[in-house]
Amino acid sequence: MTSADACGASSSSKSDGGSSSGSESSKDSSRCSTPVLDAERHERLREKMRRRQDSGDRWFSLEFFPPRTANAAVNLISRFDRMGAGGPLFIDVTWHPAGDPGSDKETSSMIIANTAVNYCGLETILHMTCCNQTKDDITGHLQKAKRLGLKNIMALRGDPAGEEWEEEVDGFNYAVDLVKHIRNEFDDYFDICVAGYPKGHPEAESYEADLKHLKEKVLAGADFIITQLFFRSETFLKFMKDCQAIGITCPIIPGIFPIQGYHSLRQLVKLSKLEVPQEIKDVIEPIKDNDAAIRNYGIELAVSMCRELLDSGVVHGLHFYTLNREVATTEVLKRLGLWKEDPRRPLPWAVSAHPKRRVEDVRPIFWASRPKSYIYRTQEWDDFPNGRWGNSSSPAFGELKDYYLFYLKSKSPREELLKMWGEELTGEESVFEVFTCYITGEPNKNGHKVTCMPWNDDPLATETNLLKEQLEKVNRRGILTINSQPNINGKPSTDPIVGWGPSGGYVFQKAYLEFFTSSEIVTALLKVLKKYESRVNYHIVNVKGQNITNAPDLQPNAVTWGIFPGREIIQPTVVDPVSFLSWKDEAFALWIEQWAKLYEEESPSRMIIQYIHDNYYLVNLVDNDFPLENCLWQVVDDTFELLNSPAQQ
Amino acid sequence: MTSADACGASSSSKSDGGSSSGSESSKDSSRCSTPVLDAERHERLREKMRRRQDSGDRWFSLEFFPPRTANAAVNLISRFDRMGAGGPLFIDVTWHPAGDPGSDKETSSMIIANTAVNYCGLETILHMTCCNQTKDDITGHLQKAKRLGLKNIMALRGDPAGEEWEEEVDGFNYAVDLVKHIRNEFDDYFDICVAGYPKGHPEAESYEADLKHLKEKVLAGADFIITQLFFRSETFLKFMKDCQAIGITCPIIPGIFPIQGYHSLRQLVKLSKLEVPQEIKDVIEPIKDNDAAIRNYGIELAVSMCRELLDSGVVHGLHFYTLNREVATTEVLKRLGLWKEDPRRPLPWAVSAHPKRRVEDVRPIFWASRPKSYIYRTQEWDDFPNGRWGNSSSPAFGELKDYYLFYLKSKSPREELLKMWGEELTGEESVFEVFTCYITGEPNKNGHKVTCMPWNDDPLATETNLLKEQLEKVNRRGILTINSQPNINGKPSTDPIVGWGPSGGYVFQKAYLEFFTSSEIVTALLKVLKKYESRVNYHIVNVKGQNITNAPDLQPNAVTWGIFPGREIIQPTVVDPVSFLSWKDEAFALWIEQWAKLYEEESPSRMIIQYIHDNYYLVNLVDNDFPLENCLWQVVDDTFELLNSPAQQ
Repeated sequence: MTSADACGASSSSKSDGGSSSGSESSKDSSRCSTPVLDAERHERLREKMRRRQDSGDRWFSLEFFPPRTANAAVNLISRFDRMGAGGPLFIDVTWHPAGDPGSDKETSSMIIANTAVNYCGLETILHMTCCNQTKDDITGHLQKAKRLGLKNIMALRGDPAGEEWEEEVDGFNYAVDLVKHIRNEFDDYFDICVAGYPKGHPEAESYEADLKHLKEKVLAGADFIITQLFFRSETFLKFMKDCQAIGITCPIIPGIFPIQGYHSLRQLVKLSKLEVPQEIKDVIEPIKDNDAAIRNYGIELAVSMCRELLDSGVVHGLHFYTLNREVATTEVLKRLGLWKEDPRRPLPWAVSAHPKRRVEDVRPIFWASRPKSYIYRTQEWDDFPNGRWGNSSSPAFGELKDYYLFYLKSKSPREELLKMWGEELTGEESVFEVFTCYITGEPNKNGHKVTCMPWNDDPLATETNLLKEQLEKVNRRGILTINSQPNINGKPSTDPIVGWGPSGGYVFQKAYLEFFTSSEIVTALLKVLKKYESRVNYHIVNVKGQNITNAPDLQPNAVTWGIFPGREIIQPTVVDPVSFLSWKDEAFALWIEQWAKLYEEESPSRMIIQYIHDNYYLVNLVDNDFPLENCLWQVVDDTFELLNSPAQQ
Repeated sequence: MTSADACGASSSSKSDGGSSSGSESSKDSSRCSTPVLDAERHERLREKMRRRQDSGDRWFSLEFFPPRTANAAVNLISRFDRMGAGGPLFIDVTWHPAGDPGSDKETSSMIIANTAVNYCGLETILHMTCCNQTKDDITGHLQKAKRLGLKNIMALRGDPAGEEWEEEVDGFNYAVDLVKHIRNEFDDYFDICVAGYPKGHPEAESYEADLKHLKEKVLAGADFIITQLFFRSETFLKFMKDCQAIGITCPIIPGIFPIQGYHSLRQLVKLSKLEVPQEIKDVIEPIKDNDAAIRNYGIELAVSMCRELLDSGVVHGLHFYTLNREVATTEVLKRLGLWKEDPRRPLPWAVSAHPKRRVEDVRPIFWASRPKSYIYRTQEWDDFPNGRWGNSSSPAFGELKDYYLFYLKSKSPREELLKMWGEELTGEESVFEVFTCYITGEPNKNGHKVTCMPWNDDPLATETNLLKEQLEKVNRRGILTINSQPNINGKPSTDPIVGWGPSGGYVFQKAYLEFFTSSEIVTALLKVLKKYESRVNYHIVNVKGQNITNAPDLQPNAVTWGIFPGREIIQPTVVDPVSFLSWKDEAFALWIEQWAKLYEEESPSRMIIQYIHDNYYLVNLVDNDFPLENCLWQVVDDTFELLNSPAQQ
């Protein structure tokens, strides 16, 4: 038994050698208070980097700059979601001193980074420059970043404003001053990244002097280095060797710039004061007006340079200067085999990367199609439910207002929404038609596809396709569905459609259906539900707050759960009677804010939506018998049958 | 929609009539923090009584007196368990002033009532008398009762000691003084019961005066009344009418005394100063030496009187003076149809009735066969795990010592244990044989059945029979099993063998196997387990605390869980790596305390047990793939195959 202590935890319990009474062995042990499905979620960036390096997993990261307009911000956030799907280890957002980067504007560096962390769930580095700024300004920015859940800073000097820049005594003259300041004021809270210049900083006295500056930044507390772009792999590999030679041991990540166009290259070269090698100029100049050709060449070039870097054995991760564009970088990553669209999800919903939300693993199902709204409305919570919703201490949801101003209003231009949802509504049936087209994906009468609805941040979930036929049928008849899930009786956690969590587990769901419908249908539905009393839980509520439910003691009903090896049960989605009333406010408000307001006041179209808002009920149904065939469609069929029966007429 | 507010909770959320932003509706709501499987568990006795009365469910209760010897106490506790199975609404324990009733002696009224509440999970009333006692004494008793989790007091005067008793000014002269004192000092904490005398108290001036005293007791704060025994239903029904006539409206429960023997009847009559009606005397006198005949008559008499009481429509519950005997009362209850052995369990393990443990719904599986030990060792905990084990704040288990002194040592006499476990052991194989006989139920070589083992409070669970064949096979070969459960993939919660919790749910289990075995077998087992690494979680530990496990991050593994309509998931049994080390101490100590010490010091038998204690490992295995066939038997087979393979020899 020499292996006895070899694996796992060994007990510290003392034994008295086998005599009578036992000893208390567990008094001092500390235990996790959360199931910890995903160890990475609890690691800081430098730990993740180290873990990848140790395991030999190669990785990539993506750099973006803040957009100029609110519309561009919305587009960039969609890009975060799409490019986040490829599995970057982190993204970073540059700091534009001229653009009020620390402000609350929706286009500021700070707010874009905040969105990436909190709403897109991306590990994010916020750039920050220090020259021409006061200590208080910088501390203020850092405090705000911390408050927003940002955990990583790229510490830069920044470009001095104007010609007359001089070193300030006690001021922030170099990046190293910022690194020191962060460590002084925030201890070890932030992971700090600094910039490396494979050709030396253009303003440095010499390449060697620049290396020494870099070492100073690392000694001052930087955790890793990202390099300026370069055009040949040898440039980086020599730089890396030189860094190691003077004792720089932290990770050094090559910055990759896939050439995407003639003008962007020229501009970048001008800014960075780099020289483009002659062999590249020779290729580009002749095709400078052919964007596609240049991009293809840029992709080829980047791929082969990246391959050389990775093959060197000393490079574990690659950092891409995306210029906020998707195609070239994505293509390079795919060719390198680094783009990994992992269909596995740690939880059924996308997790947020704010450290406060680290343990969060339960949410109400209602916001399933509007996760950003849920994150926004719970951002002030101090604790997030984990393990069980029942433990949540604060069920207070934030106001809807600000959220409307930014995320909702700008989703699509008014004209496009009108094409999808109807220039002119002729009655409730026109609304039924819109819902039906959204489900089927078929164009509406005017030939436009309905690709979004007020209740959905994203396109229809793959899972919903499992229910498509039934959903179409009921929407046609005025059961206006906004959320649904099929029942699942123990599918592997690796199932590409409904799976989530670590492998080796089993996932389960109770069938769920949520819809708006008229009071006539609700009256019939309630009669039908009596037959299903022990099987179906329901909540039926109107905009005035009339609330009909059979939920026992207002307890939450777990509707998604997973059983995993060696863990307690994870129940990440619940139907919670209390938060349903907050969701109800949001769901009803969306009729008005997103739909009715497309039309002129007093117009018939607007009045139809207003009528629905005022008179319809929001209904959710859960079929508790998950091992049996979903009975909710039968409930709906029975309801229509009752409505059509002669006695009812 | 007139039915809109008719059922369930109605929302208090305000609406601004359909305009833009929603209102916060859930801020002030309070929510249950626990799944609440069993509403009765959260009610006080008077609420339970009212609920039964409202629903028309008839009930019974049982009175016991404290035993004289420790052995009798152990027997009485077994009787609590057996008679508790019939579903009494409560039991009560009388107060014997002469027997040091408030002490910590294992035979005191206080400790017996404590055992009933905490270890047997029975709603319990502790009697308490007040005359000849100081205020401080009484307060002390009440404080202790509260601390132990007792919630109900039967407030009595008690018999004055000696002839010279006189009323004391400011003293406790009557039960009403005690009722007032309890309400003054403990507010509404206790439910208070008082005694009613259908024929009037023998010392009262008159029947009417006694009724007035009774009303005073009720006005002082008594919640319900239990009557002295009587021989005719008319006696009670008249008494009840008279009580109502003077405005006593609380429940009045008739005290039923099934005549069980000539002498006990005479003694009781003498004490209570009641007169036995002539028609009863006429029957009994001729058969006074025929115990069986008297008991049968007593049963007949009690059944017919109880029927009359229940048929009257004013009686909802019956209180039985059991005289600590089972047969007569049980028979009466069965004939009346009141004895309801409900195979349904709120949880897989028997819940405790201490108010502190009200929310408890998770326990480690290790103590499954020694639940009283678990309750004892966790009695000092302030919080009990609910919802998830992971939330438990205090994993510190109490010392084993006191528990040994009382519950364990006196389970069976030494001679009987020796017959079961072997007068003389000849080697480890004799021990294998004992384990095997316990599993099979077959007699051992000397013709004695092995009905208990040191690791089991109770006989083998029905569920274990599902595994009997395999268990027999492995015990013969030195896998000495002490705990096991089969895997269950979604059986109805009403399943008579593995079901628990409210109806309409589904229960699940991961297969579990726990055993002692030699280090040779453990060495082979560890090799085999490599093949099952992702499927089987294991903990392997010896008495010295060497600990081998593959549990991820020392997290608990839920091995029993249930899915119920409208609720979060209940996971009442876990394999917790931390508490396993406390259980390990107990499990190893039992070898010595219960088994080795049966033999002379230095005797070969004792040394064999000591050798096992010193050298064997305690192993637990969980098969995480609950939907597949249990692989643990295959693991054991593979282990023996490996041990027998030529390479191994």
